[in-house]
Amino acid sequence: MRVAVITLSDAGYAGTREDLSGPLIAQMVEQAGHQVVYTQLLPDGIEPLHTTLCQLCDENRVDLILTTGGTGFSPRDLTPEATAQAIQRPAPGIAEAMRYHSLQITPKAMLSRAAAGIRAQTLMVNLPGSPKAVRECLEYILPPLAHGLDILTGQSGNCAR
Amino acid sequence: MRVAVITLSDAGYAGTREDLSGPLIAQMVEQAGHQVVYTQLLPDGIEPLHTTLCQLCDENRVDLILTTGGTGFSPRDLTPEATAQAIQRPAPGIAEAMRYHSLQITPKAMLSRAAAGIRAQTLMVNLPGSPKAVRECLEYILPPLAHGLDILTGQSGNCAR
Amino acid sequence: MRVAVITLSDAGYAGTREDLSGPLIAQMVEQAGHQVVYTQLLPDGIEPLHTTLCQLCDENRVDLILTTGGTGFSPRDLTPEATAQAIQRPAPGIAEAMRYHSLQITPKAMLSRAAAGIRAQTLMVNLPGSPKAVRECLEYILPPLAHGLDILTGQSGNCAR
Repeated sequence: MRVAVITLSDAGYAGTREDLSGPLIAQMVEQAGHQVVYTQLLPDGIEPLHTTLCQLCDENRVDLILTTGGTGFSPRDLTPEATAQAIQRPAPGIAEAMRYHSLQITPKAMLSRAAAGIRAQTLMVNLPGSPKAVRECLEYILPPLAHGLDILTGQSGNCAR
Repeated sequence: MRVAVITLSDAGYAGTREDLSGPLIAQMVEQAGHQVVYTQLLPDGIEPLHTTLCQLCDENRVDLILTTGGTGFSPRDLTPEATAQAIQRPAPGIAEAMRYHSLQITPKAMLSRAAAGIRAQTLMVNLPGSPKAVRECLEYILPPLAHGLDILTGQSGNCAR
Repeated sequence: MRVAVITLSDAGYAGTREDLSGPLIAQMVEQAGHQVVYTQLLPDGIEPLHTTLCQLCDENRVDLILTTGGTGFSPRDLTPEATAQAIQRPAPGIAEAMRYHSLQITPKAMLSRAAAGIRAQTLMVNLPGSPKAVRECLEYILPPLAHGLDILTGQSGNCAR
């Protein structure tokens, strides 16, 4: 899989906070045998992320886009809104599964507003912001996602049928 | 309950693959004491299914429509999109419950994009494509669905209150 | 937290059924140390609730709006539709968590169509209609909601990062 990792953080973009989650995602993705071909640090807000998501998908530059940050309740947390506007075919089960998995660890997981879905031949998934939550969620979803992307990109038949 | 069973499958429609899931659903529905009054095999894609769903609901021909197939990641999997366009009142808990139930069996269940909801007096539910997954999900949801439809069609008061 | 409690019930509004769930919510909220500053009994239907939700949010009169009733399959159950139209940023994990929690108790919980989300600086959550289900859900979600609202209203940093 060709993977993009996008960090959403006003403080990270301004250089006042180190981005730990983006590099962690990249490391986990490569350890699983996939290729990180794009990384980006963006400020919170709909427009920068929405534009980036659409370009990466429409130019078929990556198979999977993983975002981190901006899925909570802060007024500037707009990652799910930017993602929802880019999605053509929702994949709600991925966000549900992450929340269901995280709820076993903390009830605060219900506050995640993460979205997931497909545009053209690319899958987009909103991961949490904290490195700890990123690790828990990504370990859980990465193997089934790889299977889903094989079907999306035509590299395997739909074994589910 | 009067039930419609609709199979979505390009290969089934072309006659190159036998539809096993549609007949299985019909059998399970009748064994539960309900009546299958409509069966259809459609090609994948939004338009044929969307038109069929709207007609069945708006003419009040059935109480429940169960679809099988087209809920995954293949580019031609458009069953949730056709269903979402026909839904007037979403019932997200049904699709969530199927995925939650199936996640106990396989993490690939998070890839299901199934939708569910109400149009007029008819409930529509997207079941998975494979006979094995159909059986697991339908056994789980059929009893509560029957209760929900009693309320929808006015045959019982809302005991939840 | 400043909390509003709104009961949706045609029978309650007509005076032919006593509202037990609204007062129960108010009692639980106050016992948890929050302040109920608004209570209302509305008939089912989109318009009265939608107008009330928007006013309470846009005038920043409350931090949290809890509704009870109107989330099921009856033709007049339109609480999720009124809420969805008022929401600017969905918080699907809250409704999912309530259903997931209630599914441990009864499979009928999958019939809940409850929605949740943010408008301006106010969070709205649809609770079930029955006192028993209200108690189960509210006990479960109230502590994490209080945390989410601290972030929304700027009274705490986003500890998730």
